[in-house]
Amino acid sequence: MSRSNTVFVGRKPVLNYVLACLTLLKSGESEVLVKARGRSISTAVDVVEVTKNRFLNDLKVVDISIGTERLTSSDRDQPTNVSSIEIKVTR
Amino acid sequence: MSRSNTVFVGRKPVLNYVLACLTLLKSGESEVLVKARGRSISTAVDVVEVTKNRFLNDLKVVDISIGTERLTSSDRDQPTNVSSIEIKVTR
Repeated sequence: MSRSNTVFVGRKPVLNYVLACLTLLKSGESEVLVKARGRSISTAVDVVEVTKNRFLNDLKVVDISIGTERLTSSDRDQPTNVSSIEIKVTR
Repeated sequence: MSRSNTVFVGRKPVLNYVLACLTLLKSGESEVLVKARGRSISTAVDVVEVTKNRFLNDLKVVDISIGTERLTSSDRDQPTNVSSIEIKVTR
């Protein structure tokens, strides 16, 4: 899947990412992938739920997958594992 | 589904809930439901990933669902919406 229909959720307010999803969906994308890692996973779920309940009632969650990513950071020798989530929505 | 094979993830350390999952799975439950709300959603994903990657490599995530729950708190007039997740795993 191309990155053009992907919303990466980070530490900004939920509504920033909701707006990103809405913009993609209104611009003709029928499918959007909401991705997050670590503590932002909860926010990613909020983004999908708020988009669906407040803005697009016909939005459907078609697939959710979770995984683990291995990150190497410059200030630590050991790579750290971080959980990730991908939520695929369509309308 | 009965509550007896459900692990509710909250604010305790990840390994507490991993141990709860392992105990259920080793005691004969073939299916365990990991549930969480709000900020604990990220921890729930960690619990499943750590259980699978570090302890039970044959663990399978068979279903993930997300939703919104309406909570009424005694110190607030307005009910608040909180996101939730349910992760069903089997071995």
